[in-house]
Amino acid sequence: MMKNKVLILFFSALLSSTSYASNVNDFCVADLKGPDSLSGYPCLPPTTLTDDNFVFNLQPANTSQFPTIKAGISTAFVNEFPALNGLDISVAHVAFEKDGFFPMHSHPDATELIILVEGEITAGFVTGMNSIAYLKTLKPGDLMVIPPGHLHFVANSGNEKATGFATFSSSNPTIHSFNNIFANNVPSDILAQATFLDIAQVKKLKARFGGSN
Amino acid sequence: MMKNKVLILFFSALLSSTSYASNVNDFCVADLKGPDSLSGYPCLPPTTLTDDNFVFNLQPANTSQFPTIKAGISTAFVNEFPALNGLDISVAHVAFEKDGFFPMHSHPDATELIILVEGEITAGFVTGMNSIAYLKTLKPGDLMVIPPGHLHFVANSGNEKATGFATFSSSNPTIHSFNNIFANNVPSDILAQATFLDIAQVKKLKARFGGSN
Amino acid sequence: MMKNKVLILFFSALLSSTSYASNVNDFCVADLKGPDSLSGYPCLPPTTLTDDNFVFNLQPANTSQFPTIKAGISTAFVNEFPALNGLDISVAHVAFEKDGFFPMHSHPDATELIILVEGEITAGFVTGMNSIAYLKTLKPGDLMVIPPGHLHFVANSGNEKATGFATFSSSNPTIHSFNNIFANNVPSDILAQATFLDIAQVKKLKARFGGSN
Amino acid sequence: MMKNKVLILFFSALLSSTSYASNVNDFCVADLKGPDSLSGYPCLPPTTLTDDNFVFNLQPANTSQFPTIKAGISTAFVNEFPALNGLDISVAHVAFEKDGFFPMHSHPDATELIILVEGEITAGFVTGMNSIAYLKTLKPGDLMVIPPGHLHFVANSGNEKATGFATFSSSNPTIHSFNNIFANNVPSDILAQATFLDIAQVKKLKARFGGSN
Amino acid sequence: MMKNKVLILFFSALLSSTSYASNVNDFCVADLKGPDSLSGYPCLPPTTLTDDNFVFNLQPANTSQFPTIKAGISTAFVNEFPALNGLDISVAHVAFEKDGFFPMHSHPDATELIILVEGEITAGFVTGMNSIAYLKTLKPGDLMVIPPGHLHFVANSGNEKATGFATFSSSNPTIHSFNNIFANNVPSDILAQATFLDIAQVKKLKARFGGSN
Amino acid sequence: MMKNKVLILFFSALLSSTSYASNVNDFCVADLKGPDSLSGYPCLPPTTLTDDNFVFNLQPANTSQFPTIKAGISTAFVNEFPALNGLDISVAHVAFEKDGFFPMHSHPDATELIILVEGEITAGFVTGMNSIAYLKTLKPGDLMVIPPGHLHFVANSGNEKATGFATFSSSNPTIHSFNNIFANNVPSDILAQATFLDIAQVKKLKARFGGSN
Repeated sequence: MMKNKVLILFFSALLSSTSYASNVNDFCVADLKGPDSLSGYPCLPPTTLTDDNFVFNLQPANTSQFPTIKAGISTAFVNEFPALNGLDISVAHVAFEKDGFFPMHSHPDATELIILVEGEITAGFVTGMNSIAYLKTLKPGDLMVIPPGHLHFVANSGNEKATGFATFSSSNPTIHSFNNIFANNVPSDILAQATFLDIAQVKKLKARFGGSN
Repeated sequence: MMKNKVLILFFSALLSSTSYASNVNDFCVADLKGPDSLSGYPCLPPTTLTDDNFVFNLQPANTSQFPTIKAGISTAFVNEFPALNGLDISVAHVAFEKDGFFPMHSHPDATELIILVEGEITAGFVTGMNSIAYLKTLKPGDLMVIPPGHLHFVANSGNEKATGFATFSSSNPTIHSFNNIFANNVPSDILAQATFLDIAQVKKLKARFGGSN
Repeated sequence: MMKNKVLILFFSALLSSTSYASNVNDFCVADLKGPDSLSGYPCLPPTTLTDDNFVFNLQPANTSQFPTIKAGISTAFVNEFPALNGLDISVAHVAFEKDGFFPMHSHPDATELIILVEGEITAGFVTGMNSIAYLKTLKPGDLMVIPPGHLHFVANSGNEKATGFATFSSSNPTIHSFNNIFANNVPSDILAQATFLDIAQVKKLKARFGGSN
Repeated sequence: MMKNKVLILFFSALLSSTSYASNVNDFCVADLKGPDSLSGYPCLPPTTLTDDNFVFNLQPANTSQFPTIKAGISTAFVNEFPALNGLDISVAHVAFEKDGFFPMHSHPDATELIILVEGEITAGFVTGMNSIAYLKTLKPGDLMVIPPGHLHFVANSGNEKATGFATFSSSNPTIHSFNNIFANNVPSDILAQATFLDIAQVKKLKARFGGSN
Repeated sequence: MMKNKVLILFFSALLSSTSYASNVNDFCVADLKGPDSLSGYPCLPPTTLTDDNFVFNLQPANTSQFPTIKAGISTAFVNEFPALNGLDISVAHVAFEKDGFFPMHSHPDATELIILVEGEITAGFVTGMNSIAYLKTLKPGDLMVIPPGHLHFVANSGNEKATGFATFSSSNPTIHSFNNIFANNVPSDILAQATFLDIAQVKKLKARFGGSN
Repeated sequence: MMKNKVLILFFSALLSSTSYASNVNDFCVADLKGPDSLSGYPCLPPTTLTDDNFVFNLQPANTSQFPTIKAGISTAFVNEFPALNGLDISVAHVAFEKDGFFPMHSHPDATELIILVEGEITAGFVTGMNSIAYLKTLKPGDLMVIPPGHLHFVANSGNEKATGFATFSSSNPTIHSFNNIFANNVPSDILAQATFLDIAQVKKLKARFGGSN
């Protein structure tokens, strides 16, 4: 028996003699308490892992989450689902009430692939070169791909609730919103100059988004 | 007016003087007729692209597609949706009738992230080191992640149809089935030795999957 | 003699017997006429290269280039300096008259490292998480680093001309301007919603940057 | 003298003023006691390294190691030879008695390059797409390459002992055996379904390889 | 107000609930006191960062730094400017008196892009295949690119001081000098054999550069 | 029958409908006649491949190949063995007569792992930082690893012929010899300055290696 057990482990037994195999070669469930580094989180010890580490219940997005935009998002990124660490994928459930939308933003480090499940949305992105807008109204079953780093938005263009999934080519997609620039202390006159917006508009947005100066 | 137009294009105009910007830095919708290479397909000329290039209608999977396994799959990989070229993501819709399943297989070059939408499935994967099985029954809204290169399977474990999405961290995930080895001309005695299967079993599977010898 | 010549080429001679060595391992001066691909341009044949292929005269930026912003930029990206192909670096000379500036933009695929040579500039970038602005006035000799994908701007904050270099960690950095979204046909009401700008402001910017609808 | 010493260190001295240079740029002998991460092990301090860290005695494989398969393997992977950390290469010595073999397995994260030194072996791998088998009998001096993720096997097809080297494009190649699935608690009926094997065959292999259920 | 603040943070707030976002997706200012690893230094906690972390004053190179070669170099590599960690770029200021030069060396892990600001220099590099020398005299405004791993040198070929910048495609370029081999204890006869130099020449250089044996 | 055949191809059939799967995800046997690019050669059509494409007979190195150094090398790099294209590995057989050696050189883009099979060699490499030499005499079965970009040499230090394998972490390792700089037209005085060699020594080596000026 023991011999058979050894046999099945054949090569793999060789790997376990000294220590755990490097996760370069396998998987690495994140230890979120560990120090963050350029290559992500350190790994939980493989011996502590159970079936549950690889499964995550993604709650449906709740459109009451952000009343101003009548939309919600429920994410399974590495911080919620640590097994994604280093595996270059993540997903979010998104929901929009009638007239709901997600404001203009970009993900410099991830492709976004939208899957519309119900309702109707209009999504668009703008290219860096030549400022071309690719804009499309989606029906259930439609996919739209947003290349990394492109400013994009999504709006419910139907009369019903719309829901779907946004999948990403990163376990931890960064989100840079168009409006981020109004939520800090960069002086309004500098912002107005750098954006070609009227200064009154800048101040209005600063007030709205918690910026100062 | 022209001056304004030039202004907005500001830096970006600089990029278009000689030729198209390298797709290292942007996106590259695949020209599937072009020569295949280590880095994927060549790019369609940006000037030929329209909104439609970035959208794809993913038909629902049809469980009559593979009657033997009572399951179906509808894919949006780079060959179906060329805009995914180089963007490290793809998706498939999957459906299982009662008792349907997907046989044991692996994706050496892609993580798979399963999203269960309706029904109940049981999915599992087996590790290389120590042969541990991580096995779980999923309900709607549950996600399960399959690390690259791990043998895994999915089976409808409920009494109803089950549907969901399989997303991948590659625009063209390779699929290596456990049964691939029975669909060619490797002599049965060699296969029996290499797999520890009985030779009768090997011959039975060779007959089933179209292998010879 | 010939023997000596052979000797010095020692190993390297081994590489040239069949064909040119793969540029994965060496350099690849771009053939800009070749088809663009995910990994950049194809290589000019090594035998056609001369000293001049590896040198480029970077003209000083001319602030009359973009009168509206009183600034200019002269680039040595892969399209101007094809030897940079695949070498992950490029540089631009930049110049600002008094009150000159570069509008808000980002480079999703490249770090920018600013080297101020003369004058005084104020530069800033805004993070995705928490919308923090890092803002600083630079004197000659100061460097500032802008991480990839972060919206940033530069303004001459002194009373003299300011000049310097912007270096990039890509041979072809993509530039996404904040104002790109106003230079196309996305309907103004959608843009207003997606940006929280007043619709009058959107229309004003659309008029300025050549957008319609 | 000191000036000369400084001179030779010229640029390099610049790197040592603050701390050790980052191993992104040099080498990183693994500290196997350190925490494992997505990018491998942390580095031993350079000042503790001696000539011996870069040399490893690879013992000849011993065919009595795995009597059932009449084969043995002696590895120099990162856990045995920590200097390989991050250097993307490793090697094993392999030996087969007459009738010896290595069972079907794959390395999802590494190319394998086989070097046959003595004897005769037959090796083969099966593709994912179209299930093609590439199968070949090798003589001393023959090389065979197994692309990453492909199921493959090696069998002594001669009348003598066979020995050789298996080199890998990873410092820590993962090994996934075809039989791993039988060495755990996945229920036999599920396994039978997922593999198209007869349930009696599954139970026989489970008994052999230490699986339950 | 608070609602607005939440709104602007929209998606980004989602990332901060559990812990800091992984730096795979953003930036990572080096904690030089942390353990070095294959992927660089660990990150300083984002909350401790200020504007000053992203700015560095690059002192002008001082030609009295290395009197023997009448040249100096002032670097902004990751050890001096920790914000460069993981961002794949760095810069040095270089200066040469009349007759000053930088000896033959290479950077295996970084492209070097030279920007001549004042004076005249002659720079050259030698290819691995075919030993071709690309050699050029540069005037102010000229750039020259040195592909990774190529032996190169720079000499002041004018009658005045020459200054410029050397930029690199790594935050921590490694420097391997041609003369490094003479600064240690490799026996002189072995070195003479391996380099085809006369043994007297080897001993002379060993004396100069602090080598023994 | 046909249904069974379809079944085994299950997922994989999905990939072949439109065209060949992208080689990003599989293998790519080089078409050496195709245009070279940053990512290597284009792929031979999969349908033209046979067993022989994946096997290569590595002839034993012949020490009469380079009489001056009493050594020989026989390579299986991508140009000889096109199946290695993109697979990040290659191998050479090396042989040294008594007193044979390989001169000082480096591989900027590949780790070298030496496997000594017979005889005795002494090998060494020199670090960039601090010019440390790691030097060791190897016996059969010993491995030595040379990190990328480090100048190294190998000499037969025994009284017999020595043979072994050099394996590399690239399918096409570049070779930069210390003596390459003497095989072209860089003026001798410049070379003497840049290397600290005596000018007479430079001229002697130029004569030997075919250089001029």
